[in-house]
Amino acid sequence: MLLKKINCYIFLVILVPRVAAQSTNPLSVTMNKVKLEVLLDAGGTPVYTVQFDQQPVILASKLGFSLADDSTFYKDFELLNTSRRSINETWQPVWGEVNTIRNQCEELTLFLRQRKAPGRLLNIIFRVFEEGVGFRYEFPLQPNLKYFIVTEEQTQFNLTGDHKAFWIPGDYDTNEYPYTTSALSEIDNTKMVNASTDIAVRTAPDPYAVQTPLMMKSREGLYINIHEAALSNYPAMQLQVNKAGYSLSSRLVPDATGNKAYLHAPCKTPWRTIIVSNKATAILASKLILNLNEPTTLTNTSWIKPMKFVGVWWEMQTARATWNYSDFPDSVGVNGKLIPNGRHGANTAHVKKYIDFAATNGIGAVLVEGWNKGWEDWFGNWKENVFNFTTPYPDFDVREITHYAASKGVAMIMHHETSGSATDYERQLDTAFRFMDLFGYNSVKTGYVGKIIPRGEHHDGQWMVNHYERVAQKAAQHQITIDVHEPMRPTGQHRTWPNWMASEAGRGNEYNAFSNGSAPEHETILPFTRLMGGPMDYTPGIFNMKGYTSYAPDRQMHTTLAKQLALYVTIYSPLQMAADLPENYEAKPDAFQFIKAVAVDWDDTKIIEAEPGDYISIARKEKGKADWFVGAITDENSRTAVVPLTFLDKGLPYVAVIYGDAPGADWKTNPEAYKIESFLVDSNSTLKLKLAAGGGAAVHIKPVAAANAKQYKKYIAK
Amino acid sequence: MLLKKINCYIFLVILVPRVAAQSTNPLSVTMNKVKLEVLLDAGGTPVYTVQFDQQPVILASKLGFSLADDSTFYKDFELLNTSRRSINETWQPVWGEVNTIRNQCEELTLFLRQRKAPGRLLNIIFRVFEEGVGFRYEFPLQPNLKYFIVTEEQTQFNLTGDHKAFWIPGDYDTNEYPYTTSALSEIDNTKMVNASTDIAVRTAPDPYAVQTPLMMKSREGLYINIHEAALSNYPAMQLQVNKAGYSLSSRLVPDATGNKAYLHAPCKTPWRTIIVSNKATAILASKLILNLNEPTTLTNTSWIKPMKFVGVWWEMQTARATWNYSDFPDSVGVNGKLIPNGRHGANTAHVKKYIDFAATNGIGAVLVEGWNKGWEDWFGNWKENVFNFTTPYPDFDVREITHYAASKGVAMIMHHETSGSATDYERQLDTAFRFMDLFGYNSVKTGYVGKIIPRGEHHDGQWMVNHYERVAQKAAQHQITIDVHEPMRPTGQHRTWPNWMASEAGRGNEYNAFSNGSAPEHETILPFTRLMGGPMDYTPGIFNMKGYTSYAPDRQMHTTLAKQLALYVTIYSPLQMAADLPENYEAKPDAFQFIKAVAVDWDDTKIIEAEPGDYISIARKEKGKADWFVGAITDENSRTAVVPLTFLDKGLPYVAVIYGDAPGADWKTNPEAYKIESFLVDSNSTLKLKLAAGGGAAVHIKPVAAANAKQYKKYIAK
Repeated sequence: MLLKKINCYIFLVILVPRVAAQSTNPLSVTMNKVKLEVLLDAGGTPVYTVQFDQQPVILASKLGFSLADDSTFYKDFELLNTSRRSINETWQPVWGEVNTIRNQCEELTLFLRQRKAPGRLLNIIFRVFEEGVGFRYEFPLQPNLKYFIVTEEQTQFNLTGDHKAFWIPGDYDTNEYPYTTSALSEIDNTKMVNASTDIAVRTAPDPYAVQTPLMMKSREGLYINIHEAALSNYPAMQLQVNKAGYSLSSRLVPDATGNKAYLHAPCKTPWRTIIVSNKATAILASKLILNLNEPTTLTNTSWIKPMKFVGVWWEMQTARATWNYSDFPDSVGVNGKLIPNGRHGANTAHVKKYIDFAATNGIGAVLVEGWNKGWEDWFGNWKENVFNFTTPYPDFDVREITHYAASKGVAMIMHHETSGSATDYERQLDTAFRFMDLFGYNSVKTGYVGKIIPRGEHHDGQWMVNHYERVAQKAAQHQITIDVHEPMRPTGQHRTWPNWMASEAGRGNEYNAFSNGSAPEHETILPFTRLMGGPMDYTPGIFNMKGYTSYAPDRQMHTTLAKQLALYVTIYSPLQMAADLPENYEAKPDAFQFIKAVAVDWDDTKIIEAEPGDYISIARKEKGKADWFVGAITDENSRTAVVPLTFLDKGLPYVAVIYGDAPGADWKTNPEAYKIESFLVDSNSTLKLKLAAGGGAAVHIKPVAAANAKQYKKYIAK
Repeated sequence: MLLKKINCYIFLVILVPRVAAQSTNPLSVTMNKVKLEVLLDAGGTPVYTVQFDQQPVILASKLGFSLADDSTFYKDFELLNTSRRSINETWQPVWGEVNTIRNQCEELTLFLRQRKAPGRLLNIIFRVFEEGVGFRYEFPLQPNLKYFIVTEEQTQFNLTGDHKAFWIPGDYDTNEYPYTTSALSEIDNTKMVNASTDIAVRTAPDPYAVQTPLMMKSREGLYINIHEAALSNYPAMQLQVNKAGYSLSSRLVPDATGNKAYLHAPCKTPWRTIIVSNKATAILASKLILNLNEPTTLTNTSWIKPMKFVGVWWEMQTARATWNYSDFPDSVGVNGKLIPNGRHGANTAHVKKYIDFAATNGIGAVLVEGWNKGWEDWFGNWKENVFNFTTPYPDFDVREITHYAASKGVAMIMHHETSGSATDYERQLDTAFRFMDLFGYNSVKTGYVGKIIPRGEHHDGQWMVNHYERVAQKAAQHQITIDVHEPMRPTGQHRTWPNWMASEAGRGNEYNAFSNGSAPEHETILPFTRLMGGPMDYTPGIFNMKGYTSYAPDRQMHTTLAKQLALYVTIYSPLQMAADLPENYEAKPDAFQFIKAVAVDWDDTKIIEAEPGDYISIARKEKGKADWFVGAITDENSRTAVVPLTFLDKGLPYVAVIYGDAPGADWKTNPEAYKIESFLVDSNSTLKLKLAAGGGAAVHIKPVAAANAKQYKKYIAK
């Protein structure tokens, strides 16, 4: 034991610099318009402020923790030392909205020690970017803090006023609520939580807690986004609103025993991020969260490929077919086998039709849900052993389908619904991935619809955060990409795990099938909230806008058809589903042409115009090509999107194919009225796209040879 | 949905017989002296009584449940029907105390239905044996009870008086307490729980709860044992003592959320067992619990072999060596590798010495603890990823050791300490067992020293009960036998899983090393308590009785050396360790001869005399041989064990080698004084074995050719 202590002491000498005097004067870091100040207050609590362009954004806000064995690990600190460095680098994501990302920031690290015995150490690392601030806590190697339990993180974000906020309830198990727009002082999630019976699992004990990313707008016109980056081995952070002082406090998702995090020094927390600008577009353009994630350690990423896919899925969402092969989980027929219900979607012949459709239309892959044993009795019972990930239903010939898809050049996407039983999934993971290897699947959609097992754990708690990462890691070992449904919301971890291509973790298009859906403004809020952390598998592209569910005939999409197309641009994801049934695409081949054409990986992205809750227009350049795609969407109000094409190469002719709302289109009364027109444009053109109420426009801009240009009429904005 | 209901209705018709009138007259079942009576009381609650030889054993006691969605699933029942059958069969265990077991009982099943809507069904199955009663609950397939949560089982055992009880605290995480002998009315575990700092994890929130098996003796001389059989997919049962009325109530070990069991009808609970006799020996001879377990489904059991083993283990318990290779978990040397501490037990050269010792002495196997990475930082931190089960420490050459052991004809026993992290063990289980297959290990000792992960779960809760069974099942798939340390106490499941050869689940000999040990009476109580459910890896055979731990030089065994030998007979297990260091055996080769000779599998067992807390004498016949072995032990009082050898074949000469306490032997003052004598005996002989205070005697009785018999003096009892 003596030897052990001596050893730790050696490290202490290395890691802890000489003791400096306690600071009462603030330390300051500035990058362009963003200024951070940090000090220790009279009680020895670290306090920070953030300003943007000399306006306060975050007022004096405390930092620190409550630990299981020290409820006051946020005060009585002295400053041992500080260090600073400048970071200015560029890096290339495996896939993304842009091909190169600049990471430029100023870093300040505080080395703190508690004055009281045993003198525990805490470091806080700040990074100041031109569009905001990130900070994280670091627990360095030290003799008196090794294994410890975080009972709460005491991070504050004291705001300057009663900002308009775009929020969903702080739920431990779901991010699938619709957004509410209200003043901070009006936040109370009670009614929303109680009313949201369309969400399978809800656990929101605190009426004043909201999820991050929390998007806000001040009366002074500042856009502020609070979230986190690089969430790993830690629970998701929620924010508790103290309405009196417009203060937000971190609240971590608890484990089964009520603890928040089990840590082992040396270690670091995720980054807390504050993105701020006087332009909404700058919020969407920010790469701050990605820059705060670790680079990937995967040396070969050539197997990771953005793609579009179709799937045996919407027909189940709309009750045309079933996931389950049998309706009788507790009984078998006279042959001792499950009794088929005759409406099972994932049957070999039917899947082949999807493969044919994908092959014909250049869609890369086919997802098939409901292929494996377990669906006949999977939902809502907190049941541990539900699905078998290596046993297809008898009408799903996995070998035959693999051969057929390969012959057509179409990839198959495996589906692993766990019903929340993560323990059982982990037990099967080795064999499930080996089964995928065997049948040539290199992509899986996972799902966690249900209460989590280990019982008492939550979707967004530390144990599950680790689970999702374990699955990503093991998938990477098998060169498998993942698309995770019902995980915690992303925090830029796709930089580290580029095979984790998308997540759901939000309210997707599917809510327009099995519930009353989402308001027309929904997709104008998502990029400012859910998408800040990473791509979403939103499943756009519904063409049959009304009456698609036999059991709820008045149900309809809350967009126009043209807006469905625009979502392929405004909702970023390297995996994009063409979610509707093949026959609905075949009925509108002209509109479907946009889905066939639209890219899923990009060299560049321009956020043209944006206002959360109102509208978004984005232009993106296809990776390795000269084609640009524009998406413009609006909320329930019609508007004209104005898109100057200054990003086009100067002097070169392009054809812009505009998939827009037709005159008279309206999300509610006339959603399928679209109009497709082609025009000659160049970098001097400015598109004025008329968006219907709940409408949108999708534009494909492609270079055209000068000789061919004359067949198109020149675009003249009206 | 309509179809599903119709389907369930069909089953209802099949399963539920016509409605009978409610019974107020008791139904009765008798087998020899045991009589069970059952009725529904005026409130519709099932009530049972048990008598032995016309004496009441269990007074009117209620049966039933509280469910999450019905807190009164114990009353308002009506009796739909009953069925009865007689069972009289014999079966052969794969290994055991006897080679053939008779299962003779009378069975009565009550088919109950709640009068109130939705008319849920509950069956109760009783089996009456000549030495007691078993009963279990059955939830049949029914339309209105499918998935459900048990919040408490409301089974009562109302006793007739303030019996003497041999008990340990009702702890959710350990069965390793020393036994207290007291009146039922004196039970309060608070002091014992608080004082037991030698137990790694203690969770005993109820001062009046005790573990089963609970052994009792009435003033009228009835011996009563309450336990359970066939615990599977259900939490362990504890008993809460209501001291006023001498009533015991079942209390199930909770999960992380406070629920007790998650069930899915049709299903059955474990059996609740009441073994009763006016002879203590009949309690020990009972096979009631084994008879209530399911036969194994393993078709090939030839690979399951009882055996003795030595191990690199006691030297760590006594601080001569370490499990861990390095004392510096957080640092590495200049070569980037762990820094060796120079005291690591599991090194190749040292392990070879154990292999040599085993080979020389006919010991079947060698256990090596501390062979794998993780021990340098394993204990007490509720850490999830601790051990790597496929990475040996650098000084443990697994390939070399495998080859060496094979060349000597010695088997190696793998060790998998999990530190309670069952989730991580399950993740590694596939590869861990494949690693064992690769290196020819077909036996593993598992361990769960620490708080369980999934956090909030307990060693004895439903999730862990399922975990241990999953491990047993997967081990069987690999033809691996298991010896589980720190599981829930056994309930006869080794009938179903004969590869689950032993468990610790009790206070073993090791407590004499790392704590103040156990009282001399301890081993006279264990067979009436812990061992009722199955074999224990007690690790007997310590020869160096005092001063074996350098850090606590006054520590000593609480037996004589001869009693250590006797334990090989009185503590039944098909796996028996010779726990001491080879050099301590080599120093006393005459005494060690008994360990070399004693069998581990038996054709027959005779419980000669027994009194819980005082003494036990048992004779066993080696499987497939004519040799008998006798073990006789006493508590802190010296006594003479009287063992008539009537079980020997009539008229044949035998030699009895008696390994007894020498005159002057005493567990405290003179524990190593033993005497070995050989005598000629036959079936008319009666051994009178003088047992010292805390002493014992071990006897090997082997046939002798008449020609050789004359060299021995005839045994004359003194």
